[in-house]
Amino acid sequence: MPTLQHQYDELISELKQISLLESCASVLSWDRETYMPAGGAELRSEQVSLLAGLKHQRATSPRLGELLDELSQADFGDEHSPQNANIREAKRDYDRVTKLPQRLVEELSRVSALSQHSWRSAKDSNDFAAFQPWLKQIIDLKREQAACLQKSDGTLYDALLDLYEPGMTTQQVQTTFKLLRDELVPLVAKIADSSTKPDQAIVTRLYDVDAQRQFSKQMAGEIGFDFNRGRIDVSAHPFCSGFGPGDCRLTTRYDDHFFNMAFFGTLHEAGHGMYEQGLVEEHAGTPMGTSVSLGIHESQSRMWENLVGRSASFWKHSFPQAQKYFPQALKGVLQDQFYGAINVAEPSLIRVEADEVTYNLHIMLRFELEQRMISGDLEADQIPEAWNETFKQYLGITPDDDTQGCLQDVHWSAGYIGYFPTYALGNIFASQFFEAAGKELGNLDEMFARGEFAPLKQWLNKNIHAKGQQYSASELVEVVTGNKFSAKAMVAHLKQKYGSLYQLK
Amino acid sequence: MPTLQHQYDELISELKQISLLESCASVLSWDRETYMPAGGAELRSEQVSLLAGLKHQRATSPRLGELLDELSQADFGDEHSPQNANIREAKRDYDRVTKLPQRLVEELSRVSALSQHSWRSAKDSNDFAAFQPWLKQIIDLKREQAACLQKSDGTLYDALLDLYEPGMTTQQVQTTFKLLRDELVPLVAKIADSSTKPDQAIVTRLYDVDAQRQFSKQMAGEIGFDFNRGRIDVSAHPFCSGFGPGDCRLTTRYDDHFFNMAFFGTLHEAGHGMYEQGLVEEHAGTPMGTSVSLGIHESQSRMWENLVGRSASFWKHSFPQAQKYFPQALKGVLQDQFYGAINVAEPSLIRVEADEVTYNLHIMLRFELEQRMISGDLEADQIPEAWNETFKQYLGITPDDDTQGCLQDVHWSAGYIGYFPTYALGNIFASQFFEAAGKELGNLDEMFARGEFAPLKQWLNKNIHAKGQQYSASELVEVVTGNKFSAKAMVAHLKQKYGSLYQLK
Repeated sequence: MPTLQHQYDELISELKQISLLESCASVLSWDRETYMPAGGAELRSEQVSLLAGLKHQRATSPRLGELLDELSQADFGDEHSPQNANIREAKRDYDRVTKLPQRLVEELSRVSALSQHSWRSAKDSNDFAAFQPWLKQIIDLKREQAACLQKSDGTLYDALLDLYEPGMTTQQVQTTFKLLRDELVPLVAKIADSSTKPDQAIVTRLYDVDAQRQFSKQMAGEIGFDFNRGRIDVSAHPFCSGFGPGDCRLTTRYDDHFFNMAFFGTLHEAGHGMYEQGLVEEHAGTPMGTSVSLGIHESQSRMWENLVGRSASFWKHSFPQAQKYFPQALKGVLQDQFYGAINVAEPSLIRVEADEVTYNLHIMLRFELEQRMISGDLEADQIPEAWNETFKQYLGITPDDDTQGCLQDVHWSAGYIGYFPTYALGNIFASQFFEAAGKELGNLDEMFARGEFAPLKQWLNKNIHAKGQQYSASELVEVVTGNKFSAKAMVAHLKQKYGSLYQLK
Repeated sequence: MPTLQHQYDELISELKQISLLESCASVLSWDRETYMPAGGAELRSEQVSLLAGLKHQRATSPRLGELLDELSQADFGDEHSPQNANIREAKRDYDRVTKLPQRLVEELSRVSALSQHSWRSAKDSNDFAAFQPWLKQIIDLKREQAACLQKSDGTLYDALLDLYEPGMTTQQVQTTFKLLRDELVPLVAKIADSSTKPDQAIVTRLYDVDAQRQFSKQMAGEIGFDFNRGRIDVSAHPFCSGFGPGDCRLTTRYDDHFFNMAFFGTLHEAGHGMYEQGLVEEHAGTPMGTSVSLGIHESQSRMWENLVGRSASFWKHSFPQAQKYFPQALKGVLQDQFYGAINVAEPSLIRVEADEVTYNLHIMLRFELEQRMISGDLEADQIPEAWNETFKQYLGITPDDDTQGCLQDVHWSAGYIGYFPTYALGNIFASQFFEAAGKELGNLDEMFARGEFAPLKQWLNKNIHAKGQQYSASELVEVVTGNKFSAKAMVAHLKQKYGSLYQLK
């Protein structure tokens, strides 16, 4: 059927052009966060808007809709064939963007820009009341957006979650988070009660920034990030941006009195970057050459940051090198002491500084509140109180003020409601993938101790990166691990690791 | 007439959008030269092509043509009113791009990419024969392009020159260059015969790169480049790219054994940058907010690099600071010795390394050969011989090989024929403007010696930058200086400066 093939080729060519246009905007956004002088802000926002508008025009074109309608009826073999995956996911995107009225899209963009601005000053001055009317507007707009996208068998929150974690339902997340919480809350309490305390002061000594830069870059290279096809720079908030084949940008930030920030931040972003670099070039710009979900993306960053980078075996290989880079800070420090210091677990107020154990509780709290915001059960003005109560319940402590509490994250002000759960999903997916990789590859710890990271990286390339959007996130987990999405592997990992570190009974 | 105003507003809005699209491509090109990893080259060329295509579509749209036709008939007051200037220059651009057949545009783009590639390896291996067929193709295509653009009263070469220096004729350039050559050739000879020789070794000592970076950035700031609205980075070939209001990027390069390269390179690019930063924001994206020609642009960079940066008074202010930055290299060096060392004049083979006196002879040589290439009088295979003969005639020396001769510049391989003259025009314009500024502002040398650069900068802002494309380059010279375009001021400057430096009779 030459006509059908011709239509498919037209679809692919159009998707690639749309993606290319989006990648131009990505370069501009990267530059805004890394090198743009202050005076360039206004021009940059005009440039990015122009490109977004051009992209939107093409992504909603009637011709694209026609092609997708016709191709959706066609027979391209197996449900998960590359053609079917491309058509299915492109149609999903098309339906989503065409379902939203232009007015709502513009209003969301306008309000979220102003709201972020208000959030920034509200956070600085601990003034939730000033931010509250903006948050209320955001919640209303997100409810409206959710109503446009809501499926007949789904809730409003499902529709928002689906924007970031396609195919995942609120119900699935709830069930998994419940199991996890029931395990984590007592684990956190046991750790707090343990008389064994690693010496965290080791990682807060003076670490020369230039040596940090070199060492973290070296290790990002060793685990497999390809600096011929990417680079790392500094930004206020670390991120990874894969422009396309051959060009993936990471950022990090340095604190000369905190080793963890840049080092684990770099491994984290390198994990994201290796996903981007592992996408299949031939499929670039189409769903088959695009990451599947934020949760799966986060699974890659968290795996390299925590399951690899915070493992004892990783430091068996790397600690002698660290001592060369930081002869003063690590003078007389034993590998085990260092390992303890980078793995201190204790309840804390700020999500982005939380450890492997408590981090997920920060997420669950946000997930709870978000559902209530969107269902209409929690008004904007009730958020600080609800935050503090739930925080106490999950982590046993209460923030002194909203700056350290419900004002700490940019997400809600930017309209990212439904986004937070993907961070914890990433941790959960990571443990499931890591367990499966270990089963297939043998003893990963022994490899890491020898500085061999290629087997794990190649396994991820083959089993996850190369799949693009062939499967949904939950399908991918099942295809790759043979198990359904579940927090069991993560709970086992945390109990084992922290049981040993804190000598828990 | 509301309809006319409405049409004019539509024109301005469309021109601003086209310019905004172009500015996106400028960011991508800047990144390509500064930070892009090697692996990103293919994607980047696709991105830039996409944006160029989108821009071309809009810049050649029939609606734009209609608007320009109608507005050209309308009465917007004085010939040089902002409206008339915008309409006239936009129409000039529109006519130019719509006159060129799509096939020729694509062929030029394709061949020049391949030809540059061939040039690079031919230069590396001193193999003109390998490059010759590409150069022949380029010449043929440029002749074809010139034929499309040629005016009834102009030559083929006029049409190419007009691409870079609108309104300037080959005849005008010839006349001015002849006068200049007749003065420069004997001046060069006298300098060579002088027994006074500055000690150039002073500037080839070890100059710490980080100190070079700080010092050159400091001085670029002192002369008036605004780092809140711009920045400076490193690239293989220095350039300035003004993205638009508030964001202008400079680049430079460092040689730890040659002070001049980064320092004067930075002042040069800062001069370009101050032009970009001096354009009127309200007119951004329209001809009235765009630089007028390459020659006028170069006049700004050359003025700050040479007439200011290489003056004795500049170093009266700056030498004590230089000594702080480079205590070893400048230990025991007197200000006059340093001034001599940065102003050594002698015949040399490489244009970009040539001094203030001999530089223009390098340009004249290229201008001569280009005219003969385009008239059909000089075939590609005859270029090396013609180069060496003319070189001998103008500068008294002959290159040992083509790498040091006719293969040294990228321009011809990239299709930039008609571009070279603008470098010398820049020098000429610079001297005329500088002379006029001095007449109006008083003793500039005394100001420089006190570190006062703002009066000159503000004079340039007002008299040149703010004018945009209100006048053509030659008109602007006349409006600003009261004199016609002429090399007299430059000759006087060079004779005076070098007469004193080399104690010429």
